[in-house]
Amino acid sequence: MQVEHGGALDRAMERFGGGIDDWFDLSTGINPEVFPLPPIGPEIWNRLPDEKLLASALRAASSYYGMRSDAGISAAPGTQALIQIMPELMIKGEIAIVGPTYQEHEQSFRQAGWTVANCRSVDDIPQSAKAAVIVNPNNPDGRVIAVDLLLDLARRLDGRGGFLIVDEAFADPHPEVSIAAHAGMNGLIVLKSFGKVFGLGGLRLGFALSTSAIAQALKSRLGPWPVSGPALAIATHAFSEKQLLADYMARLSVRRTLLANVLAEAGVVEIGGTMLFSLVEFRQAHLLHEELCKQHVLTRKFGYAPQWLRFGLPLDENAADILHQRLGKALSTVSS
Amino acid sequence: MQVEHGGALDRAMERFGGGIDDWFDLSTGINPEVFPLPPIGPEIWNRLPDEKLLASALRAASSYYGMRSDAGISAAPGTQALIQIMPELMIKGEIAIVGPTYQEHEQSFRQAGWTVANCRSVDDIPQSAKAAVIVNPNNPDGRVIAVDLLLDLARRLDGRGGFLIVDEAFADPHPEVSIAAHAGMNGLIVLKSFGKVFGLGGLRLGFALSTSAIAQALKSRLGPWPVSGPALAIATHAFSEKQLLADYMARLSVRRTLLANVLAEAGVVEIGGTMLFSLVEFRQAHLLHEELCKQHVLTRKFGYAPQWLRFGLPLDENAADILHQRLGKALSTVSS
Repeated sequence: MQVEHGGALDRAMERFGGGIDDWFDLSTGINPEVFPLPPIGPEIWNRLPDEKLLASALRAASSYYGMRSDAGISAAPGTQALIQIMPELMIKGEIAIVGPTYQEHEQSFRQAGWTVANCRSVDDIPQSAKAAVIVNPNNPDGRVIAVDLLLDLARRLDGRGGFLIVDEAFADPHPEVSIAAHAGMNGLIVLKSFGKVFGLGGLRLGFALSTSAIAQALKSRLGPWPVSGPALAIATHAFSEKQLLADYMARLSVRRTLLANVLAEAGVVEIGGTMLFSLVEFRQAHLLHEELCKQHVLTRKFGYAPQWLRFGLPLDENAADILHQRLGKALSTVSS
Repeated sequence: MQVEHGGALDRAMERFGGGIDDWFDLSTGINPEVFPLPPIGPEIWNRLPDEKLLASALRAASSYYGMRSDAGISAAPGTQALIQIMPELMIKGEIAIVGPTYQEHEQSFRQAGWTVANCRSVDDIPQSAKAAVIVNPNNPDGRVIAVDLLLDLARRLDGRGGFLIVDEAFADPHPEVSIAAHAGMNGLIVLKSFGKVFGLGGLRLGFALSTSAIAQALKSRLGPWPVSGPALAIATHAFSEKQLLADYMARLSVRRTLLANVLAEAGVVEIGGTMLFSLVEFRQAHLLHEELCKQHVLTRKFGYAPQWLRFGLPLDENAADILHQRLGKALSTVSS
């Protein structure tokens, strides 16, 4: 099984033509603005990322995520690298995944020989599951599960010798949703994506917040120097520059409003989303996806939900205007 | 077990004082000159590294390494990330490691439950071993095993359902040593480090050359987007810019001569090495290591060989002059 992803602009360009500058890639949930980069000195490129550089980044991340001082934190080259090794943290069994959601969790656990129970809600999680994955807020529908419910679930799973993985790839702009302040309790692992919110998907950086024992196990599994020096230096900078960060998050919020306005003006119905994307429901969504491709706008469609399309954020007002025009054209073709 | 490494300048600074600019870190085998970086556009930072970017880097790497067209190649965030997953390529058994050598191979196989046979030469490899690791040229002594011998060994191990891992982290400047042109044959996996030769240890990029079937298994194990966009863009550039590369390698060679001259003038005996480092034998090597630290020169000592010190390369003539002075002072203290 190969999981289908957004971001395959190269394949869309092959099929629908156009150069890189003609296209709007709205198929991922990555902030389109790269966080203002600090200068990266030659020693950061040259040297293996040493313990001091790693420790600075982890300290800055702990503070940004509001972690308890007794919690553990691990850095990996992208949340995906952590998803790949989650199944190795315990002896295989049954894992419940509340979905539909980001499909790499299921892929990773299945590949490692786990049994996967696909659940529609927390209530559906079977007694036989010793672990569970919840993406919160969920991708693609933005569904949120309350922290109290998650804490209950983590305690129950811990009681069975298992754990709850909360994937908070899209939680940073919604701090009230985050369970990160509880990381360090037994039975809870929180995954954080740096690249999505900070517009640095190419950088490959993600964090796992957990007990120190699990952090130690992940560290040993990842081996020395899993994350690049530039990634550690950039993250330390981004987490620490409070004013830059506040301004950047404010621009993210403006961008989300621009997207909501474009969709509303086009009469397209948003049924969910997060600060980084919007999910719309449309009877002929796959047809609209194709018409948008002809207009050189790439969105995300879903094999399991043919009535859904996910839209990422336009960079600025100019991009929103162009999106408005192209979406109008695509819609007129689909409706005619 | 925690493997001791070079590059721990932060710990040396804590103990011996001095700022980052006061120190010469000669404790790693990384080229001290960062390969001239291309401009890295915002889309490389922002987007997940797509298939096209990865394919370009892999194509450029295949050509640079002189690979057969039917061989497979995988990119990982550093050779270390590949070392971490080598034990998962087959059911555990006994692995022979020809050493002493880079210790992370043993660490990784032991951690995965393999039995490790430490061998002094290829002739020592027991019949019971189904896999073997040979670092070629070896780190730290530069010992070279001929390609024909390695091919024989790979065939024998393949006959036992196993394979030979040849770690060529230091082979690029010694093309006559490399077995890369044979990658694609059954029973052979070749590991290549990008960061060491290209002075980009912070970038985290390594390659495995193998059969396509093993490349597929590694790809599946690493998951999508294991390597950063900047790493892929920089590697594509470095492998393709033939003139830049030739000039860069010429400067590396000059640097190696500078080091050899400093050591010879100080009367220190080189007993081995590669283009990227020199191994010297000295009765009181651990004492010399400490005296060099007091002079703010960090070298690599070895717990298993207290008479050895490994020296990395000085950047230029100026650095070589300073090293000459400091080595002289350290030696006068040790001998007095």
